[in-house]
Amino acid sequence: MIHGSLFPAASDASDVSGDCALRVGLIGTGVVGSGTCQVLARNADLIAQRAGRPIRLVMATARNLLKAAQVLGPDVALVSDPLTLVRHPGIDVVVEVMGGVTLARTLVLDAIAHGKHVVTVNKALLAEHGSEIFAAADAQGVIVAYEGAVAVSIPIIKALREGLAANRILEVVGIVNGTTNFILTQMHDAGLSFEAALRLATELGYAEADPTLDVSGMDAAHKTALLAAIAFGADVPLDLVHVQGIGTLDPFDMVCAQALGYRIKLLGMARQRSNALEVRVHPTLVPEKHLLAQVQGAMNGIWVNADAAGPTFHYGAGAGSQTTASAVVADLMDVARQGSAGLSARVPHRSVPSGVIRSWPILPIGQVASRHYLRFELTKRPELLTRLNGWLQALGVDVQRLAHVQHPQDGMQGAVVMLTQCLTGDVLLGAMEALRQMSGGLEPAAMWRVEDLN
Amino acid sequence: MIHGSLFPAASDASDVSGDCALRVGLIGTGVVGSGTCQVLARNADLIAQRAGRPIRLVMATARNLLKAAQVLGPDVALVSDPLTLVRHPGIDVVVEVMGGVTLARTLVLDAIAHGKHVVTVNKALLAEHGSEIFAAADAQGVIVAYEGAVAVSIPIIKALREGLAANRILEVVGIVNGTTNFILTQMHDAGLSFEAALRLATELGYAEADPTLDVSGMDAAHKTALLAAIAFGADVPLDLVHVQGIGTLDPFDMVCAQALGYRIKLLGMARQRSNALEVRVHPTLVPEKHLLAQVQGAMNGIWVNADAAGPTFHYGAGAGSQTTASAVVADLMDVARQGSAGLSARVPHRSVPSGVIRSWPILPIGQVASRHYLRFELTKRPELLTRLNGWLQALGVDVQRLAHVQHPQDGMQGAVVMLTQCLTGDVLLGAMEALRQMSGGLEPAAMWRVEDLN
Repeated sequence: MIHGSLFPAASDASDVSGDCALRVGLIGTGVVGSGTCQVLARNADLIAQRAGRPIRLVMATARNLLKAAQVLGPDVALVSDPLTLVRHPGIDVVVEVMGGVTLARTLVLDAIAHGKHVVTVNKALLAEHGSEIFAAADAQGVIVAYEGAVAVSIPIIKALREGLAANRILEVVGIVNGTTNFILTQMHDAGLSFEAALRLATELGYAEADPTLDVSGMDAAHKTALLAAIAFGADVPLDLVHVQGIGTLDPFDMVCAQALGYRIKLLGMARQRSNALEVRVHPTLVPEKHLLAQVQGAMNGIWVNADAAGPTFHYGAGAGSQTTASAVVADLMDVARQGSAGLSARVPHRSVPSGVIRSWPILPIGQVASRHYLRFELTKRPELLTRLNGWLQALGVDVQRLAHVQHPQDGMQGAVVMLTQCLTGDVLLGAMEALRQMSGGLEPAAMWRVEDLN
Repeated sequence: MIHGSLFPAASDASDVSGDCALRVGLIGTGVVGSGTCQVLARNADLIAQRAGRPIRLVMATARNLLKAAQVLGPDVALVSDPLTLVRHPGIDVVVEVMGGVTLARTLVLDAIAHGKHVVTVNKALLAEHGSEIFAAADAQGVIVAYEGAVAVSIPIIKALREGLAANRILEVVGIVNGTTNFILTQMHDAGLSFEAALRLATELGYAEADPTLDVSGMDAAHKTALLAAIAFGADVPLDLVHVQGIGTLDPFDMVCAQALGYRIKLLGMARQRSNALEVRVHPTLVPEKHLLAQVQGAMNGIWVNADAAGPTFHYGAGAGSQTTASAVVADLMDVARQGSAGLSARVPHRSVPSGVIRSWPILPIGQVASRHYLRFELTKRPELLTRLNGWLQALGVDVQRLAHVQHPQDGMQGAVVMLTQCLTGDVLLGAMEALRQMSGGLEPAAMWRVEDLN
C-alpha cells in the first residue's frame, strides 16, 4: 500500500487515501506554525502530487489552545500536553516551531525516542544541542530536517548538501539575520542612529520586543555555526564562534565606508584556512558592487565559494510566516518521499549536518587574517596625518586606500579612514598598541574587518 | 550488500568495496566531460562519503579516442562505438555530454531502453525531445537528471523541484545564457557594438565558433522552456516560445535605458497569467538596482517568485568545465543515493520535469502585457515632441517616464526615450501603426519590453 502510493499517476494523486498520508503533529501555532497550516491547506493538491502522498496536519499543541483552535480549524486535534503529541502513535513527524531551547530539546529528543521524524526551524536548539539531537536521530533511524533554521525561504541547506555536494566548499559568507540587516539598511540609507533604527524595526515588527539575540549577533552565530557544520562536516562549538553585534556601530562608519567604495553588513562567515576553520560573525565592509552589499532590508543572502562550481549566491526572505513555512513544508515533503519509499530514514546526508563529521580546529579571531578598515579623528590636527603614515609604515601596516571624510552632521568631527593590507587581528592590535605608545595616545576611533570576496 | 552500503560509518566510506559503486559511462570527453573526470577524481572520497557509495567512471567514448585516453587515464575503458557503452551490462548510468540532438537522442533512448539512468546537460535535446525521453524513462523506471542543462553551477532545478516544492511558482525570470550576457556587459560597460563585443567573446572563448544558437536567443529559449516545464509542470513546445536575440540591439539603447534607470539584459521568462503561461526570451529593460541587473559577464542569475517563499534569487557561473561538472556529479550523487536504496528510480519528481504535467495554453506574444520602452529620433525636430505626446495620449499610450539622451558618439542623432504603461504587444503595435499614419511617418527607432519585477 505504502509502496504503491509512491508512484501515483499524476491525475490520481489527490485520490490517494488518507491511510498513506504523512501525519504531522505541530508544536507551536504562532507565526511559523500558522503559516505552515496555511501553506499545507492552500497547496494541498500540489504538495500531494509532488511528494507522492498527502501531508496532513492531524494534531497540534500550543500555549493558547483557544487561539490555536481558531488558527487550525476543526480537523486538527488539539492537545494541551506536548508530550502526548510527541508520543502519539498517530503521528509520523513532529514540527517543532515553538522556539526556546530547554523545553524544545526535551520534546524533540522525546519525539525521536518515539520514532518520529522531526522538522524544526530552531537554530538556537540545533546550534546548542545539535550533536546530541543528530546522534539520537541516527541511533533511532529518523530524520531531523531544518531547512528553515538558517535562511528561511532560501533552500541553502539543500543547495550545500545536495546541489553542491560534488564540491569541496571553500567559504560560506552570509547575511543571515533579517532584523540586523533591516537596521543597517536604515542606518545607511536614512542616516539613522542604531537606536533610532532599532526603534523603527520594533515598530514595524522586524525586531522582537527583546531584540538582544538579533542585535548581539547571536542569532547569526547560531546560523553560521549550522552553515559551517553543513559545509565542512564540522562540529562547531558555539563558544568558539567569534561574535560581535551591531550595537557599537557608528553610522558615520557607513558614510566613511561608502567613501572607500564599501558597505557595512553583519556577515556570518565560515571558511577553510589550511587545516583549520574560521567561523565568525561581525560587522564587515563589503565592496558596494558585491551582491551581498545589495541585500537590503530584512532580506537574507548567502555567498558560497566551492572548488568546482566556483561562486554561487542564494537570496531570499530572512523572516516571515509563509516564507518560513515554505522551508518547513519542503522538509515535510522530503520526509514524505523518503519515508514512503520504505527506506530507513537513516540517510546520513539528511540527518546529520553533512554525513561526515570531522574535528576541525577553529581559528581564534586573533589569528584570522583580513584587510582592516581604520578610522582616525585627525581633522582638527591635520599635521598628524603625515606622521601617522610614517608610524604605520614603521609598524608594517600598509595603507592601501585612504580618504578624508566630513561628518554629515554640523559640528561633528570628520575623519581620515584607510584600508590596510591583509593582517591577523593579533598583528593589527599589536601595531595599534605600539602606535598608541609611539604617538602619545593616537588610536583609531573605529576598526572593522574588510571582506573583498574576490 | 547494496543495502548495507547505504549507511557507511563516515570513516569507512572509502573502504566500501567497488562492488557497490555506481558505475558511470561517459559519452563525450570535451569541456564538460573532462571537468567531470577531474571532479570525480579530485573529490572521490568526499563524494563517496556524501553519496553513501563510490561513483566510478568505468567506460567512455569520444570522437578522438587518443585524446580521450590522455584525459581519462588508464583506469577507464575506451570504446569506439557509443552503442557498446549505452548497452554495456557493466554500466549503471550514462553521462551524455557530447552535445547535438540527433545522435544524442538515439543514444539516450537506447541507454534508457537498456535500463540505464541518464545524466545530461543537453538542453537542446531535452527542449526538443524531452517528452519522448521522460516518457521512456518513466516506462523503464530510470532517472533522467539534467541539473547542468539550465544554469550550469546553480542548483536551480533542485531549488524549484525540491527546495521550493511547497510553493505554487508565480514566475521564473532568468539570465540563462553566459555568452550573450558577456556580450551585453561589454556593450554596456565599454560601449562596444554588438559585432565588436561578439568578436571579443569569441577571442576569449566565451562564444563558440558558430555563435548562432547563443546570439539568436535559442539556447536561452531551450533553457526557459525547461524552466517553465519544471516550475509549472507544463509541456512547453519550443515553437510556442517567443524568441528574440541580441543581434539587433543598438548599444545606444543601453545608454538610453541607463538614463531611465534601467539596464538591458537578455531574459528568459516563464510566468503564470490566469490560466495561461507566458514563455518568452528577448532583450528586456530591468531596473538597474535589481539583482538581475547586477549579473555581469558570463554569469547566470535566476529570479523566482513563489506564493509562500516570495522572491528568491539564484546566481552562479553560466559556463565552464568544472562548473558544469559540479551539476553533473551532483546528479550522479542523487542517482547513487536513490539507486542504492533499492528504490525503483521511478520517483515522479525526478524523472519528469515536475511530476505533474498539465496542458497550459501558451500566450502569443501579442497578448503578453508589459511596460514598453520606446526610442524616437526627434532631436533634429524638437517641435515634434509636443505633438508626439498629444498623439500618444490620443492613442491611449501613457508616457510614464521620458528622457532626452545625447548620443555618446559625435555626429550621431540623440533621442527621446520613454516608458509606457503596461500594454499588450498587439495594443502597442496597433498604436504605433496608428501613430505612423496620423503623424505622417513617425515611428520609434527602437522598442523593447520592460520588466520591473516588483
